[in-house]
Amino acid sequence: MLLTNATLATMTGGNAYGLIAEGAIAIEGERIVWAGAQADLPSAYSGFHSKDLGGRLVTPALIDCHTHIVAGGNRAREFEMRLQGANYEEIARAGGGIVSTVKATREASEDTLLADALAKVDALIAEGTTLIEVKSGYGLDLETELKMLRVARRIETVRPIRVTTTFLGAHAVPPEFAGQDDVYIDTVCIPALRAAHAEGLVDAVDGFCEGIAFQPEQIARVFDVARELGLPVKLHAEQLSNLGGAKLAASYGALSADHIEYLDEDGVAAMALAGTTAVILPGAFYTLRETQVPPIEALRKHGVPMALATDANPGSSPLTSLLLTMNMGCTLFRMTPEEALAGVTRNAALALGAPDCGTIEENKRADLAVWDVSQPAELAYRIGFNPLHQRIFGGRA
Amino acid sequence: MLLTNATLATMTGGNAYGLIAEGAIAIEGERIVWAGAQADLPSAYSGFHSKDLGGRLVTPALIDCHTHIVAGGNRAREFEMRLQGANYEEIARAGGGIVSTVKATREASEDTLLADALAKVDALIAEGTTLIEVKSGYGLDLETELKMLRVARRIETVRPIRVTTTFLGAHAVPPEFAGQDDVYIDTVCIPALRAAHAEGLVDAVDGFCEGIAFQPEQIARVFDVARELGLPVKLHAEQLSNLGGAKLAASYGALSADHIEYLDEDGVAAMALAGTTAVILPGAFYTLRETQVPPIEALRKHGVPMALATDANPGSSPLTSLLLTMNMGCTLFRMTPEEALAGVTRNAALALGAPDCGTIEENKRADLAVWDVSQPAELAYRIGFNPLHQRIFGGRA
Ligand SMILES: [Zn+2]
Ligand SMILES: [Zn+2]
Repeated sequence: MLLTNATLATMTGGNAYGLIAEGAIAIEGERIVWAGAQADLPSAYSGFHSKDLGGRLVTPALIDCHTHIVAGGNRAREFEMRLQGANYEEIARAGGGIVSTVKATREASEDTLLADALAKVDALIAEGTTLIEVKSGYGLDLETELKMLRVARRIETVRPIRVTTTFLGAHAVPPEFAGQDDVYIDTVCIPALRAAHAEGLVDAVDGFCEGIAFQPEQIARVFDVARELGLPVKLHAEQLSNLGGAKLAASYGALSADHIEYLDEDGVAAMALAGTTAVILPGAFYTLRETQVPPIEALRKHGVPMALATDANPGSSPLTSLLLTMNMGCTLFRMTPEEALAGVTRNAALALGAPDCGTIEENKRADLAVWDVSQPAELAYRIGFNPLHQRIFGGRA
Repeated sequence: MLLTNATLATMTGGNAYGLIAEGAIAIEGERIVWAGAQADLPSAYSGFHSKDLGGRLVTPALIDCHTHIVAGGNRAREFEMRLQGANYEEIARAGGGIVSTVKATREASEDTLLADALAKVDALIAEGTTLIEVKSGYGLDLETELKMLRVARRIETVRPIRVTTTFLGAHAVPPEFAGQDDVYIDTVCIPALRAAHAEGLVDAVDGFCEGIAFQPEQIARVFDVARELGLPVKLHAEQLSNLGGAKLAASYGALSADHIEYLDEDGVAAMALAGTTAVILPGAFYTLRETQVPPIEALRKHGVPMALATDANPGSSPLTSLLLTMNMGCTLFRMTPEEALAGVTRNAALALGAPDCGTIEENKRADLAVWDVSQPAELAYRIGFNPLHQRIFGGRA
C-alpha cells in the first residue's frame, strides 16, 4: 500500500513534528518500508496500490502508556456524593474509595471485566489509538491480579489493538492486610508477581510509592524480584509528595516514572541518566484539583522524554480520551502541542519499551492516524472534538 | 411510538433527576403524549408500536445554549505560539486574537462557514444534542453579521437539530473603529441588528459587557433597540470583572446572564427577581486558566436556574462536548451531577426561552437521549467518553 498526498508528522526529530509536506508512506504487510517527500519516492514503491489522502495530516497512531482500564464497577456514586458535600469518612462508610473498586473487581467475572474494558478501549480506538498499557492492581490477591491480567491479554484478541500488561500488585494495601504492608508485599504481592510471570501475563512491573501506599524500601523488594525475572519496571512516583520514588525507579533502569508532580531536579537528573521516561498524567491532576504541576521545565532542561497518558481509572481519572489528555497537558501543564503529540506517540512508545512504533519511519509498524486537520497543533488545541479520519493498524485500515 | 423498559431522568423536579424506574414514554408525532411508570401506562397508548430500551437511561436530549460555533478559521497556531512562550504583543503581531477570527470570518464564504460549523455541530449531535444556540459577533460589520446568522439558520436545514440565533454585534470593537466604541455601536451594531431582524435572522440579542469590550451604558443602547423590536436579551457579564452587567441584563428581563465568575450576591438577587438564568461556561474558565469561580452557592440560595454550555469558540473555549462541559461544571465549579444534567437540559431551555423542550413530560417535544449507563451521575463523572446509545429528535430516531 502507498499513502500519498499527505502531510506527515513523522515525530522523528529534525524540524518541528518531523513534518514532511506532500509526503508519502509505503507499507508492506505490517511495516512501513519507506516514508518521505512524495517527490523522492523510490521507483520500487511506485507500483504499490496507492491511496490519495487529500492533503490530510498523518501522525503515528496514538499510544496510551498508562491505564487502569480493567476495573470492576465505576465510582459515579462516590463522585456524586462528594459533590453533594459528603466527606471522606461518609464516602468510606458508603463503601467508596479504591476499596470499592477492589471489591467490584474481585466479584466481577472475566467476561464482565472484559466488556467494561472494551467500552473504554473502543473510545481510545475511535481516536486512533493502536497500543495501550493495562495494569493490574485492583485485585490485591493472587487470583484477582491474575484475572485482571488475563482480561488485559484478551483485549487484543477481540479488538485491533496491541496491549502491554503491567503487574501492579503494589498498588494499595488491601483491607484484610491493613497495617501489615510488609506482610502483604511478601505473602501476596511477590508470590502473585511470580505466578503471573510464570503464566506469561507480565510485560512490566509497577508500584505506587506514596505515603498512602508503599515506601521506597517495599517497592525495592518488588523491583528486586522483577529484576530477577528479567522484567522492566516503572513506578507511580511523586504524585502527592516526594519520597524519592523516581530516583529509586531510575536506579533500577525503569522504563518510566509516572505522575511526578512533586519530583525535584535531583530526581529529574537521575531519570535523565537512567534513560527513564516521564509519564505525565494531567487527568488525575485535573480530577483531584491538584495545584502542584510536574517540573516540565526541568524535564526539558535535562532532556528527559515526556509521555502523556490518560491514567484511565475509576477513581482519580475516569478519562478515556488521549486527545483531551493532550489538551490538558498543554492547558494545565504548559506543554507545547508538539510535546503533547510526542507524548502520545514517540515518548509513549519509550515508556512501554516498544521500539517498533511511535514514529513514522522505515521498519516501524504501520500504525498510523489520519486526521481531518490542517496543522498538527489542532490536535491538542481542540477540546472534546475528534477529527480522526482513519486509523491504520499494522497496515490495515 | 412507545419506549418501554427504561429508567427516565425526567428532570421535572420532585425526586432527584425526576427519576422514574421502569418507565415508559408514549410519543405521537413530534411530541411526548405520556411519560411515567410503565405500570401506570394508560390503555390508550398500549397499542403504540413499542421499543424495549433494555433498562437504559433516558434523559431529555441535550441543549447547548451558548455557542459561537459559526466562525472563520481556528486559532491553533495562536494556541501553539502562546505555549512556545510568545507574549500578547507577539501574538497580536502575528495576527492572533479575536481580530484573526473576525478577519477569517469576513473572508470566508457562507459555504465554508457552514462546513466548518457542521463538523462541530456533528460532535454535539453525536452526544445527543438537539437544540443549539448560535451567536453572530465575528463579523462586526453589517454584511458579515448577517452572513453568520444566515449560516446559523442553514444548519437546521441540513442537520436534524434546531438552532436559535443570537445577534452579538456588541461582541468587540473592530479594528477599523478602534477608540470609537460609541460610533461603532450607533453606526454599525444597531443598524446591523435592525437589518438582521428585518430578515428574520434574530431570536435574541446579546452583548459583551467588560472592560475589554463594551460598557453597560453602550449595552443598554443595544438592549433598548432589542426591546423596541420585541426581542429577548442575554449578556456576557462579569467574566473578568464586575461591571454590573448581570444586573443591567436583569433590568431588561434578560433570558440569561452568561459567564458571571465575578458576579456578586446583589447581582444574583437581581437575576432571581427577573427570572434570568445563569449560564455557566467552564470551558472558557479552564482554557483561560481563571481562578475566580462563579458564585454557585449564592445562585443556589437565591434559586437562580443554572445552565451549562460549551461557549464553543475558536479563542477562549474550543470545546464541542456538552458531556465534558458537565464534568467541568462538577470538577471545576463543584456543581452536582444533577445540576450539571439540569444545566444542559431543563435550564438550558430556560436560557433560550424554549418552553417546548428540556424535560420529559406530556406535550414537550420528543427530543430524547438514550444512554448506556446505569445511573445519571455517570454522564458527568466520565471524562472524554460518550455513552450515547440513541438520540431521538422530534420523535424520530
Ligand atoms: Zn496509575
Ligand atoms: Zn460567549
